[in-house]
Amino acid sequence: MDSRQQFLDKSDKLKEVFLPHLSADPVIFGFDHNELKVLLLKMNYRKQWVLPGGYIRKDEDLDEAVVRILKERAGITHIYLEEFGVFGKKNRSELYFEDFDETLFQKQRFVTVGYYALCNPARFKLIADEYSETCEWICLNNLLEIDLAMDHREIIGKALLTIREKISHKPIGYNLLPEKFTLSELQKLYEAIVGKTLNRGNFYRKIMNLGILKKLPEQRKGGAHKAPDLYSFDKRKYMKALDNGLNNW
Amino acid sequence: MDSRQQFLDKSDKLKEVFLPHLSADPVIFGFDHNELKVLLLKMNYRKQWVLPGGYIRKDEDLDEAVVRILKERAGITHIYLEEFGVFGKKNRSELYFEDFDETLFQKQRFVTVGYYALCNPARFKLIADEYSETCEWICLNNLLEIDLAMDHREIIGKALLTIREKISHKPIGYNLLPEKFTLSELQKLYEAIVGKTLNRGNFYRKIMNLGILKKLPEQRKGGAHKAPDLYSFDKRKYMKALDNGLNNW
Repeated sequence: MDSRQQFLDKSDKLKEVFLPHLSADPVIFGFDHNELKVLLLKMNYRKQWVLPGGYIRKDEDLDEAVVRILKERAGITHIYLEEFGVFGKKNRSELYFEDFDETLFQKQRFVTVGYYALCNPARFKLIADEYSETCEWICLNNLLEIDLAMDHREIIGKALLTIREKISHKPIGYNLLPEKFTLSELQKLYEAIVGKTLNRGNFYRKIMNLGILKKLPEQRKGGAHKAPDLYSFDKRKYMKALDNGLNNW
Repeated sequence: MDSRQQFLDKSDKLKEVFLPHLSADPVIFGFDHNELKVLLLKMNYRKQWVLPGGYIRKDEDLDEAVVRILKERAGITHIYLEEFGVFGKKNRSELYFEDFDETLFQKQRFVTVGYYALCNPARFKLIADEYSETCEWICLNNLLEIDLAMDHREIIGKALLTIREKISHKPIGYNLLPEKFTLSELQKLYEAIVGKTLNRGNFYRKIMNLGILKKLPEQRKGGAHKAPDLYSFDKRKYMKALDNGLNNW
């Protein structure tokens, strides 16, 4: 079907069911092959990439809406979403719908609420919705090369800043790494988030000081070098650090 | 004027000017006489206390709206507001307007965006708006004794949790304390925020370790005890810690 017509056909139905002016955009980060990725849809219309966002039903709570939206748009369920910012510039989505007239539901001004989550992409089978050609994990390093719609680049940037700030006082990695990992793999995750190379010695000292790791009596075999030790998170201490922050007053 | 009539008279005008379904609520914390306080209005209608919140104009950005709202409702200007959460339960304000019919603008479902700020109350002359009897700094310790409308108690609670988490990795106090202060006064501020008494020795050691304080060559005179040293913030180091967080990777 013509992708422009798809918007027109849906507009009246959307007006009935959804609140005007309000949307939600989930920024789902995945860590995979030592790279940080973000979940994006390539829209049929204009072939631009977007976050898997959507509208809020008149009869549902905002928190319920974002869970439903993520399921409908990308097939993702059972993921913990946290709100991180609201994007309320008056012209933020105007341009995207410039070829439509003002009666189109999708064209009105939307203030969008950003949610983020961190996950292991291997857990999910992605299913793109009817408005999208494809649904994919895109490396953060490749974001500059793709055509992102509206202010979605800014939204992803703010989400990334939020997790960057978070790892200064909260542990990270539990839903992102396999159960057993090497310190080098954990360092790669931290490097992907802070966006720079970390000194190995400093990193090891700081991460061990947090007291959230368990050294396992096994090594990762098969590499060219000395087999590195495997670790896992001490779940009780990890959860405690998550609740309290890493440095209390 | 009858406070119920006040709502009815404004409804049509509000519909013209403001976005439906969206509001903003500023939670302004003040620190004064060693106590943490929050800015509240006592509404003419029902005599309940509320945050100084309001609606978003169709032609303004969300960030502009909250600044205007705070000025209109409480006379407060020149204050740095930070978004901390969105409150989107579908029935959150239903009860407050139960004596009105569905056509009232103010009665519709509103998703509200919470902003917080920290300030020194001495800086401001409060001016209550036409909907309110009074505009006051209310001690957090007295919040349980007053009648707070809608979910405003929950919103204040979330704002407080946000600054509690923030002080684990960001410095605090710059806009809250006078230019010169004793370590004991700074400790009182931290205690007011975390909501518990802190060990004096631990607090002094941790706060000095942050490297954001300058010891001044003067003492606070006039107490019964030995005159305590005065400190001020080292603005450059304070701002750097604010930018980077207190513990980087």
